[in-house]
Amino acid sequence: MAKIKKVRFKLNTFEYIKPFHIANNIAYDTKNIEVIIELENGIQGFGEASPSFRVNGERIEALMALEEVVEEMIMEMDVREYRRIFEKIDSLKSASSIKAAVQYAVLDAFGEEVGVPVYQILGGAKKEIETDYTISIGSIEERVKDVREILARGHRIIKIKVGENLEEDIQGMIAIHEVSKGCKYIVDANTGYTPKQAIKFVKEVYRAGIDISVFEQPVDMNDIEGLKYVRWKSPFPVAADESARTKYDVFRLIKEEAVDYINIKLMKSGISDALAIVEMARTANLRLIIGCMGESSLGINQSVHFALGTGAFDFHDLDSLLMLKEEKFRGKYKVEGPVYKV
Amino acid sequence: MAKIKKVRFKLNTFEYIKPFHIANNIAYDTKNIEVIIELENGIQGFGEASPSFRVNGERIEALMALEEVVEEMIMEMDVREYRRIFEKIDSLKSASSIKAAVQYAVLDAFGEEVGVPVYQILGGAKKEIETDYTISIGSIEERVKDVREILARGHRIIKIKVGENLEEDIQGMIAIHEVSKGCKYIVDANTGYTPKQAIKFVKEVYRAGIDISVFEQPVDMNDIEGLKYVRWKSPFPVAADESARTKYDVFRLIKEEAVDYINIKLMKSGISDALAIVEMARTANLRLIIGCMGESSLGINQSVHFALGTGAFDFHDLDSLLMLKEEKFRGKYKVEGPVYKV
Repeated sequence: MAKIKKVRFKLNTFEYIKPFHIANNIAYDTKNIEVIIELENGIQGFGEASPSFRVNGERIEALMALEEVVEEMIMEMDVREYRRIFEKIDSLKSASSIKAAVQYAVLDAFGEEVGVPVYQILGGAKKEIETDYTISIGSIEERVKDVREILARGHRIIKIKVGENLEEDIQGMIAIHEVSKGCKYIVDANTGYTPKQAIKFVKEVYRAGIDISVFEQPVDMNDIEGLKYVRWKSPFPVAADESARTKYDVFRLIKEEAVDYINIKLMKSGISDALAIVEMARTANLRLIIGCMGESSLGINQSVHFALGTGAFDFHDLDSLLMLKEEKFRGKYKVEGPVYKV
Repeated sequence: MAKIKKVRFKLNTFEYIKPFHIANNIAYDTKNIEVIIELENGIQGFGEASPSFRVNGERIEALMALEEVVEEMIMEMDVREYRRIFEKIDSLKSASSIKAAVQYAVLDAFGEEVGVPVYQILGGAKKEIETDYTISIGSIEERVKDVREILARGHRIIKIKVGENLEEDIQGMIAIHEVSKGCKYIVDANTGYTPKQAIKFVKEVYRAGIDISVFEQPVDMNDIEGLKYVRWKSPFPVAADESARTKYDVFRLIKEEAVDYINIKLMKSGISDALAIVEMARTANLRLIIGCMGESSLGINQSVHFALGTGAFDFHDLDSLLMLKEEKFRGKYKVEGPVYKV
């Protein structure tokens, strides 16, 4: 028996090494909630919630207040029955980052209890993955400078934030490409474009001879028709991120044939919906990216084990860890430049 | 490390206690293949293939000849990386029962290796399930006699085979209902009706005041339009069985809104596709039955652990074990009348 005896939430603030600038948003720090689950035998499981008000509508104050609610929900439940606990926690529809952290902490405690790392419980499909690194929105000179820096650190997959100024974004892409030939690009507009702006962007970039591996969330999160419009007109694969929070969102996107890629973030969907999205997307021949919010090493640990276990992802956008000031590395994996491995 | 060193196939024949009569088919025995996977440390994992020529087009002779092919495919692979092995074995598209047995044997060996029962690896959602019992096609007197027998043995969920003679089937339903009020009925036509016959059947049964929990595979396996026709006209939920072999079949059925239920059988889909079907069906709000071919206790063990682990099924049609003459019970679960438990 491995029953849950205690659930604790702990607020941790992490500063960004430099401000993180995406379409219509600049972050200087991130406030995350560490979730600790304690079993009757003293074993502890750890998770981390990195909430997003912009994407999920989550507020840290409201989430912190859920500590007792969660404890009451899963008290006395056995982590060896993790799907029963997942189902209980699925009811936290307005606290998806907490859902993710609690569900992962349960898996972590189960893994410790039985002596099997979480990535093996989930299938052990891979032993290492490579993360991209994100270039914030900035002047063209700043973007190029940032790209040179990450190339020097060994990154070869570059995520480029766009969506505030179409002309600058196009010129920025061309300038970045000049100094990073051979790299792969994921371009993310974070809902910043209209459908027609998005098409102008990809056409100009295509004309400049640049290949984009994935074009992420070009338009408003609720504009599924717009997403579909871009998908069918774009020469590059189009991904849903903000539009794809739950498994039900993804089911609708698949039915509508609206995208080529889904960006799964545990903070949007938890472990339970993420597992469903993996299976649905693969069956429907969509491809997958795994992304993050502002997780520290503890939160990125969750996505690393999920990605290694399922082996489901073409691209791993798990770089928040590399962008935050953090005193102590807490992941159950190793970081070697852009590579995360067990 | 828990590497695979040997794969063995063993042919086992089991006689039915009494001939098993479904639409256009009578079986007197079943030929199953026991799959044994041996690890370098001596640990063994067991699976069982119970092939169906009628449903899967599988022939026992061809399957037995795959022993070396399978061994070569997964030799030296580590059962702790079970999703990698699943993916390899997914290529056995014309040997789905072997795929199921090998994938389960891998999970079984992994479970033995780490000391965790398979149902817990899969999520531990339930501790017990209740199986139905199947009434073969026969004269009305025979059907009623069989029903009385299984009621005496504690069964309360009755699976009724129909599909050879519409008038007899309707009269049979009414006669069975007379002696089994309060029971739940799953009615299975095994592709035996035309769409219009199927509608006549449900309307007459409905008019007689009988409730059917699930009406399974009324029409030809390739007649998806027919299935949809029955689904939209039937007062009772309609299930796909023969029409739903792989996850791709189920994806199409969902897109077409053709059914209310899916009958998952590991022998049709293996563990990998079964996991995908569970996630897709739940997301699309379809409901699930788990069924069997002619598995002995060893093969039913696979479906019991899958059902307990995922907790995904409304109905468990896992009665072949109870219908076969078998010398030694080999399941890692207990049988108490209609209840299977860990």
